[in-house]
Order: sequence, then structure tokens, then C-alpha cells
Amino acid sequence: MRPKIYLFGDSITEQSFDDGGWGAALANHFSRTVDVVLRGYSGYNTRWAFKVFDRVFPAAETGGSEGAAPPLAVTVFFGANDACLPDGYAAFQHVPVDEYKRNLHSIVSSLKNRWPKTLVILIAPPPIDEDERLRHPYAENPSGLPERTNEAAGVFAKACVEAAGECGIPVVDLWTRMQQYPEWRKAFLSDGLHLTPEGNKVVFKEVMKKLNEGGISLGKLEVDLPVLADIDHADPLKAFQ
Amino acid sequence: MRPKIYLFGDSITEQSFDDGGWGAALANHFSRTVDVVLRGYSGYNTRWAFKVFDRVFPAAETGGSEGAAPPLAVTVFFGANDACLPDGYAAFQHVPVDEYKRNLHSIVSSLKNRWPKTLVILIAPPPIDEDERLRHPYAENPSGLPERTNEAAGVFAKACVEAAGECGIPVVDLWTRMQQYPEWRKAFLSDGLHLTPEGNKVVFKEVMKKLNEGGISLGKLEVDLPVLADIDHADPLKAFQ
Repeated sequence: MRPKIYLFGDSITEQSFDDGGWGAALANHFSRTVDVVLRGYSGYNTRWAFKVFDRVFPAAETGGSEGAAPPLAVTVFFGANDACLPDGYAAFQHVPVDEYKRNLHSIVSSLKNRWPKTLVILIAPPPIDEDERLRHPYAENPSGLPERTNEAAGVFAKACVEAAGECGIPVVDLWTRMQQYPEWRKAFLSDGLHLTPEGNKVVFKEVMKKLNEGGISLGKLEVDLPVLADIDHADPLKAFQ
Repeated sequence: MRPKIYLFGDSITEQSFDDGGWGAALANHFSRTVDVVLRGYSGYNTRWAFKVFDRVFPAAETGGSEGAAPPLAVTVFFGANDACLPDGYAAFQHVPVDEYKRNLHSIVSSLKNRWPKTLVILIAPPPIDEDERLRHPYAENPSGLPERTNEAAGVFAKACVEAAGECGIPVVDLWTRMQQYPEWRKAFLSDGLHLTPEGNKVVFKEVMKKLNEGGISLGKLEVDLPVLADIDHADPLKAFQ
């Protein structure tokens, strides 16, 4: 059976198979070796994500009584919604930062309890372009203020990095990484929050780096069926015995 | 458990999660409802594909003794390699057209025996731009002749359409469909054989049409967890009870 990598997160994960998406890029990279499984839920924060954990990862599907193989890796990518301002129009999605951090701990513990050897990678939320958020509201917004700020996203990103450190697992600090590029607002964000194809490339590269450091790379994975280069032109069927 | 759609085919399937790919587009379209599972094997013809059938679809994974749910659909997309000329440099991939048709019957029967209700969709090979094939050989080619011709691809496409008719299942006749556009060579093919993003869109649209006609569409599929629009802003956790 082919091993799996689960992508668990909010809309930035749900949309990761759209044109140029980081999820599709992972699936393409591992096309002969790994099933990349999409578990993205638009709008979700860590409170809701932890509530649905057992339905996202049902025991029967993922290594309960039937002994299915544990996934190679799981990316956990939340925070963009938790960081909605508590007094903005998206306040119903907000989660206080202390609870956000606790929820990340709970999600990571649940994954690690079930699959001690699975590589769990946290991904911190991206930075926010507030001007673009005002141009792309997803609800009526008479206040004239953005529902998310870059500063708040940064507080949650920092908490995510801390949680990863406390859990002893790798983390992609997307908020910090993206802002190392002067053109991050236009280059990486399509609406001040979601990712352009270039922004998706940043996520893909950073996740690939963490997978690689965690021992997950094409060189170490078994291809389950013969590749064309290993098929003898004079006797092709030999490869399929 | 989320239902699955398997994509079984050669390199045009294996590459279907690359930028603009038809597989990624399906995964994106069904992001909250279906797992789109990539089973593409570059260079494979139907002879090899049938040889590995039980390893591509292991009984334990796909509804054997453990009673896992049958997949919603399987696309079977071979023929581009079977149609390699028997006297060209890719002759080791060639399969006579009568055997190609028999192999398609065998693959479809194996799928239908295991899962009588699963929608099996055949996809015929795309047309060939011979000039481009000469510019993109994948082996030494002193003959100066292309290893595939459009005429041969057409013979295999016709056999694929016939096989689908005999099996009573839907078919995407890609060879015919693409050539209905005058600019098909440059618009749809990147190297005279594989697909551009525009070519991928044709496959995506045609497969979507067949899925829809077979009763598989977003409107009829169950979303396994609450969508944001159904979450009460005043009491979000209610949706997760």
C-alpha cells in the first residue's frame, strides 16, 4: 500500500490543489510514491479543527483496529482564522492566542499518540496585507477596518513556532519567511491573505525542506511499480514478474 | 470515510498534478468531498497495466475483506504507448491494437467485477504532432522518423471507443475531441504528445462531463464536515455537535 501525507488545515490548505497550489505540487513531486491527502476546511480555526479531529482522521481509515500503515507525515496549518480580530466582522472565527497554542498542542498530541513515528509539521499563518483585506472583504464591513492585521497574524505565528518547539517538531514560520522578500504583499498574496502561485511555491519549498530533513525524500521512498528506465527493452515483461 | 476517484493511466495521468493538470483540477473541484487518487505510470501500455492491476488496486486497500467502500469512479487512460510504432525506437512499448482492445476489456472487467457500481470511464489517447515528436525524442533516433504517428493514435482511439461501447461504459474520445480545434497541435500538446495546461483543461472538462452524466457531482455528494456558510456566527460550535 502506498504511504500517505495528510494536509490538515484551513482554506490555504483547501485551495492547495488549485492552479500552482502547494498541495498539488507535493502530489506531483511524489506521484509514484506517496498519496497526498487533502483535508482542508475553509474558515476553520484550531478550536473547530480539534473538535472534528476524529472525523478528519477516522481510526478505521488511518491505522486503528485494521492496522493500516501510519501516514509518513501530516502538515497542520492553522492560525489565519484564529487570528481574526475579536472585534471585527470575522470575530466568530477568532480564538485567543493562548487557546490557539493549547489547541495546536492537542492536535499534535492526538497525532503523535496515534502515530508516534509520523512526521508532524506545523505551518504558521502567512503575513496579512491589510489594504488588500479591505478590498476583499467576505462580509459586509461598514467599520472600514480590516478583519485581520499583520501584527495579530505575527502574534499567532510566534505562538505556533513556540508550540512546535515545546512539542519538539518542525515548523514552517511562513509569517517570517514571506516577509523576508520585500515584494511579499503583491508577490505572495492574492487578496491579502490567500496565496498566489508564487506564494504557494514558498510553502511547497519550505514543506519539502522539512520533509527532507525528516527523512522523507524520493531517494528514500520505494517506488511500488517498475519505472520506465528499469524496464528492459528486449524483455519488458521481466520487470513485472 | 471520504469516497475516492482513481486515475489509472500512463504519463499523461502521472503528470496530471503538474501545473494546470487535469488531476489536480479534479482534486481541487472535489476538495471537500472526494479523494482523487493518482495511479499514473509513465511509459506503461495496457499489457503492463493489466499485469500490475492487482498491485495498483490491492484488495485490502480497495474493498476486499475489510469491506472498504468502493470508489466512486476510475478513469482508465492508456493507448498513447500501445500506439508506438512497432518499428520505431519505442517499439518495446507497442502493443497490437487487437490486444490493446482485449486488455482494455480485461481491465474494465476486473474493475467491474470488484465494484459493479463504480463508474469506469475510458479515455482514448490524444492526437500526435509528429513534427514535435521529432524535436522531443526520448531516445536516440537516427531514423529521422517519429516513434508515434497521429494516424496510429487514431486507430487506437477508435479501438478504445469501440471497447467502451462493448462494455457499455462512457468514453472520452480525446483524439477526436482535440482535433475539433484548429490550433490543437500548439494549444494542447507540449511535446507533440503530453498536454499543455490548455490540453489538460480539455481532459478535465470532458471527464467532468462524464462524471456528471454518471451522477457524480458536487450537488449530489455529501460534505463530511460543516462548511463555513452553515456555521452560525452567534454559536459556531453548534455545527460541530
